[in-house]
Amino acid sequence: MPRSLLAALMLLVVGSGPAESADPKTDRPPNVVIVFADDLGYGDLGCFGHPTIRTPNLDRMAAEGMRFTQFYVGASVCTPSRAALLTGRLPIRSGMCSDKRRVLFPNSGGGIPEREVTLAEALKARGYATAAIGKWHLGHLPRFLPTNNGFDSYFGIPYSNDMDRVGGKGPKGRAVFWEPKTEYWNVPLMRDTKIVERPADQTTITKRYSEAAVEFIEENAEKPFFVYLAHNLPHIPLFASDEFLGTSPRGLYGDVVQEIDHGVGQILEALEEQGIAENTIVWFTSDNGPWLPFGTHGGSAGLLREGKGSTWEGGMREPTIAWWPGTIPAGSVTTELGSTMDVYTTSVKLAGGDVPADRIVDGVDLRPVLTGKGPSPRKSVLYYRGTRVFAVRMGPWKVHYVTESGYRRDRVEHETPLVFHLEHDPSEKHDVAKDHPEVIEAAAKFVAEHREKLVQPPSQLEIPLKK
Amino acid sequence: MPRSLLAALMLLVVGSGPAESADPKTDRPPNVVIVFADDLGYGDLGCFGHPTIRTPNLDRMAAEGMRFTQFYVGASVCTPSRAALLTGRLPIRSGMCSDKRRVLFPNSGGGIPEREVTLAEALKARGYATAAIGKWHLGHLPRFLPTNNGFDSYFGIPYSNDMDRVGGKGPKGRAVFWEPKTEYWNVPLMRDTKIVERPADQTTITKRYSEAAVEFIEENAEKPFFVYLAHNLPHIPLFASDEFLGTSPRGLYGDVVQEIDHGVGQILEALEEQGIAENTIVWFTSDNGPWLPFGTHGGSAGLLREGKGSTWEGGMREPTIAWWPGTIPAGSVTTELGSTMDVYTTSVKLAGGDVPADRIVDGVDLRPVLTGKGPSPRKSVLYYRGTRVFAVRMGPWKVHYVTESGYRRDRVEHETPLVFHLEHDPSEKHDVAKDHPEVIEAAAKFVAEHREKLVQPPSQLEIPLKK
Repeated sequence: MPRSLLAALMLLVVGSGPAESADPKTDRPPNVVIVFADDLGYGDLGCFGHPTIRTPNLDRMAAEGMRFTQFYVGASVCTPSRAALLTGRLPIRSGMCSDKRRVLFPNSGGGIPEREVTLAEALKARGYATAAIGKWHLGHLPRFLPTNNGFDSYFGIPYSNDMDRVGGKGPKGRAVFWEPKTEYWNVPLMRDTKIVERPADQTTITKRYSEAAVEFIEENAEKPFFVYLAHNLPHIPLFASDEFLGTSPRGLYGDVVQEIDHGVGQILEALEEQGIAENTIVWFTSDNGPWLPFGTHGGSAGLLREGKGSTWEGGMREPTIAWWPGTIPAGSVTTELGSTMDVYTTSVKLAGGDVPADRIVDGVDLRPVLTGKGPSPRKSVLYYRGTRVFAVRMGPWKVHYVTESGYRRDRVEHETPLVFHLEHDPSEKHDVAKDHPEVIEAAAKFVAEHREKLVQPPSQLEIPLKK
Repeated sequence: MPRSLLAALMLLVVGSGPAESADPKTDRPPNVVIVFADDLGYGDLGCFGHPTIRTPNLDRMAAEGMRFTQFYVGASVCTPSRAALLTGRLPIRSGMCSDKRRVLFPNSGGGIPEREVTLAEALKARGYATAAIGKWHLGHLPRFLPTNNGFDSYFGIPYSNDMDRVGGKGPKGRAVFWEPKTEYWNVPLMRDTKIVERPADQTTITKRYSEAAVEFIEENAEKPFFVYLAHNLPHIPLFASDEFLGTSPRGLYGDVVQEIDHGVGQILEALEEQGIAENTIVWFTSDNGPWLPFGTHGGSAGLLREGKGSTWEGGMREPTIAWWPGTIPAGSVTTELGSTMDVYTTSVKLAGGDVPADRIVDGVDLRPVLTGKGPSPRKSVLYYRGTRVFAVRMGPWKVHYVTESGYRRDRVEHETPLVFHLEHDPSEKHDVAKDHPEVIEAAAKFVAEHREKLVQPPSQLEIPLKK
């Protein structure tokens, strides 16, 4: 949405009352920081049980905050997952998914539609300074870039770090850790709408993203702000700076995660140094599960089945931590359901606004969970793959209509759906469909009602780039 | 070993100097408490990443102590694993393993040999009060029972809770949670060498074990003591007391783990109330991995492969926590290698003694790891199945000669061994044998040297009960 229209419209759309959770001393709504990893698996943090990846800063964040053990993304791949987080809506509602191309590519002409109210737009309308840092992947044409979608500034790469692959060994001095070494990734690094480096030096990119976030926090400590820090790692190809290379017993993947973890520590420290920790909520999660076909360059979903690209749990349940000293009870662990779409709604509410009333928003307000005062309003999860509902979770039950790996062609359309009790059987090993026809029936009704109300715009992912 | 000879002999065997880590204020060596779960998997605790099993007390123990992420048992099934812990030696050295019967049964006539110096005997020789509570499984004939092996007292069941299966529905009021419900487990509950209840009421057994441990701690707070609390759950069949039944989102298995967790909390509190927490080391671990063929009644090895009975990591790597306020750095996580056999050696050293010098003891002294002052002296792990070395770990590398599930007959004898880098690839997915012939060579040499020095007594597990 063009910036010129934004402020006026937002006042209509998102309300104008005082912030509901404003700091009583300053009448200032809380800052929001979202750190979004790329292809990090459910099992890839120390506090989520990884044996050799060390994440002292994220472990500290969990020890001082809340760990979500049943937290989901809106899709098992990049573009639709990011669209869900930033719009609070299932990707199918914005056209940000497709059955033909799973994500946007450098030859795509589509992107996040103007009519969507991004989280940045909603918070900007409430007076927030907003920054996007890192991977965007919601359209690389100018009108789709962050600075045209509610962000005051942008520093990052416009799509995945494995795109723009070209022959040759790349510029001198650049470490390339993924075979074949006869190609490299000519991904551009952008500032706002300009390319400032190409190929982006990915060996220092994580460090630079974290530093940019810290700098933004320091510069905006006096007003409410929103930082969306979307690391483009540990998506392959993997890169780490000299400072982290070779430091993890887990190898290069561990080095990369440790560098992201280090940046989280810097952000928490910056918030503390600025004296705004108690007025800032920090979220950490990942866009989808681990990319499994790449040997030890891919992560781990822990005890969950499968990974990225799949609607098995490993594809869509993410290691999630929320930190807000003084508001979120320290050291808490919740099994309540949550979703990145709920981060949208919760953030808008925390800012004193409301989500757009003229459309379906799928996010719910997680404030009762965050404060430890009540259950999650979320009772269900829809597992879309492209434009189809492959599975649905209702309470502890998950019903699979179609199953497919994220990387093997093993699609099965189940005549009788599979049913798993996810809280008893998080690894989805023991199908109990025959004992629970009532679950299948309730799920069918729920999905039918959802599909009836669904308005599905044309897919943005199928629009080719005009030459 | 008969009690009469014990004290005299122990002075010769285990030394008589002052305790090396004695409390300087009291010149008193630290108390040792070992809580040993049965068939609990690597992934079954909150602090090891389980999404729906709540273990606030064990999580607290980890937050105040040290979590070991690469800690092993001496065998992947019950009897030999327990023998390893209590002798500090590989089960093959004591004859406590076999290729014909994997554990002792009610119709077995063998048990832990007299010449073995149990941890209880070694600590008793250093003046410790000693108690065995829970499952024994090192021989049920009188001469093999705990009170003839260094323990002042015993309260528990002599073998697994699924043995002595008989027809019928069992005494009234006993909850039986495992099909078929036309049989029950007539396992005796013993006090010292006498049967005091048969069948043991397993619904209250976990609670009674924890209470017995607390009582012993309270009664012995003035002298050094050793408590070996070996819960017989969550081995199937599962039982929970009314207080815990139905409380876990994980279902019955979670209820059972939560009841064990609750008991750990009671023990830590008792130590604090008695003012002896800073002079007590508490260990928590499990005898082997989860028993996988029993649906949701079995546990989870998290991201590790396979479970109980197998020499894949899921069979022998256990969720381990050590707690010793003031000595073990709070909130520490170590990837250093450890083993239950090292608990033996470390405990004997802490008591100011030394391990028997007339035989090979496999345990190493973990004090450098516990104090955060140095690496583990353990650099290797032997994965025995029965009397054969199925695999060996050297540093981060694991070499498999034979692989087999714990419950499927899928044995493969590998002409070229499989090689995994466990710190990069904890799930043992990516065989790198072809790139690392030097690892295969070094492992072969190591195993050959081990086998050359091995003295293998006849198996105790093959001795039938005389009628």
